[in-house]
Amino acid sequence: MKQLLLIGIGPGDPRQITLEAIEALQQADVFFLIDKGEVRRELIEVRRQLIERHAQPGSYRMVQIDDVQRDAQASDYKGAVQAWHEQRAALYARLIEYELAAGEVGAFLLWGEPGLYDSTLRMLDLVRQFGVEIALRVIPGISSAQALAARHAVPLSDTGGSLTIVPGRRLSELAGIDNVLVMLDGRNAFDHIAAEGLYIYWGAYLGSEDEILISGPLQDVKKRIARARKEARARKGWIMDTYLLRRTP
Amino acid sequence: MKQLLLIGIGPGDPRQITLEAIEALQQADVFFLIDKGEVRRELIEVRRQLIERHAQPGSYRMVQIDDVQRDAQASDYKGAVQAWHEQRAALYARLIEYELAAGEVGAFLLWGEPGLYDSTLRMLDLVRQFGVEIALRVIPGISSAQALAARHAVPLSDTGGSLTIVPGRRLSELAGIDNVLVMLDGRNAFDHIAAEGLYIYWGAYLGSEDEILISGPLQDVKKRIARARKEARARKGWIMDTYLLRRTP
Repeated sequence: MKQLLLIGIGPGDPRQITLEAIEALQQADVFFLIDKGEVRRELIEVRRQLIERHAQPGSYRMVQIDDVQRDAQASDYKGAVQAWHEQRAALYARLIEYELAAGEVGAFLLWGEPGLYDSTLRMLDLVRQFGVEIALRVIPGISSAQALAARHAVPLSDTGGSLTIVPGRRLSELAGIDNVLVMLDGRNAFDHIAAEGLYIYWGAYLGSEDEILISGPLQDVKKRIARARKEARARKGWIMDTYLLRRTP
Repeated sequence: MKQLLLIGIGPGDPRQITLEAIEALQQADVFFLIDKGEVRRELIEVRRQLIERHAQPGSYRMVQIDDVQRDAQASDYKGAVQAWHEQRAALYARLIEYELAAGEVGAFLLWGEPGLYDSTLRMLDLVRQFGVEIALRVIPGISSAQALAARHAVPLSDTGGSLTIVPGRRLSELAGIDNVLVMLDGRNAFDHIAAEGLYIYWGAYLGSEDEILISGPLQDVKKRIARARKEARARKGWIMDTYLLRRTP
């Protein structure tokens, strides 16, 4: 049986990795580093440094490949995502078949928390459906949502309250906004909702040297956040950010 | 200025602590261990072991106190919680005033993630309102929600989907259940909702030797889970568990 480790490595700060994740890094024979294009080179580099810092030199090999790109212009969002997942699953199935020997342990280093908006787990389900047998272990990691709340020193959820986590494109579908954490917002969804009575805690590149934090009444700070995003994206070529929207008490 | 560290220590497995949390443990002069009664002694013990494993011997002291108990029978839930918070805040204010010297660093070791259903942060806001000046730093930790999803090897949220996190007592208020993570359910809330079409992933004492995992269609496994909870609570005197309810695709 081939083993696969899905290791959550936290949102950016190399100290936001668990001892369990470090142990997992030390067990891996093969690291699969998936390159998502020019702009994400930096993220690959952070992973490489984590491996070099924690794994035994000479005890592992790295396999770096270009990921399949999703058709971001497709009108059928769900269909495009589904097609993309199947192509990626085929790629991963080949990787596991040709790059990992029986009895070996392969590892994926996943940004933040493997269970939140990361498709690797879903994709490996598809790989299994292709008939590839794998033993899977998931190691949780600190999500950017947690880093965000910690840096602003606010709770994610109040006593007795609830928290809804949504991707940016679904923010406008919500019936009401009480306490919402938004991830993967590429289009300033916070700027297309009624801002009255809402407070925002926003953060980008959390835990890294480039970290930016802005908070305040949504009405007052939304333009500043939109500007900060635009400038940061232009400067670095990519952005990873998240925010919490909360009804002002 | 006095400093306070709110350190998330993960849900039970001592390896599910981050390097950042370990560094924080090493910076603390005083650890405040809050005893929540006889049944929670075991949880204090886990904290004590973490401190002894990671902090420099002789570099710190521990202050152990009994926490204020909440009136669980009060009819006015919100009012009872509020009164409880104020009493706790007064207790913590005294602790900070008398047990922590100027320039020293105090630390609270918090189960799971400090931002999820932990009242310490909220309480320290009250302490500040009493006029006690403190510099606060929050260190995120792996939540039981993440440990649950990892142990069941399922994502917390699907691509493009959302996740709602609620305390047990609010589960029945939800208009619909699509993908819901339930915490702090003392009364088998999963047994008081329409079970048709729902799948449950349940886990208790996650990451510890006592870990129990059950999953399946809610209709089929809910009695088994209720029984497992009852037996575990009787055996250990306390239970910490959480579950994910998901509409069956």
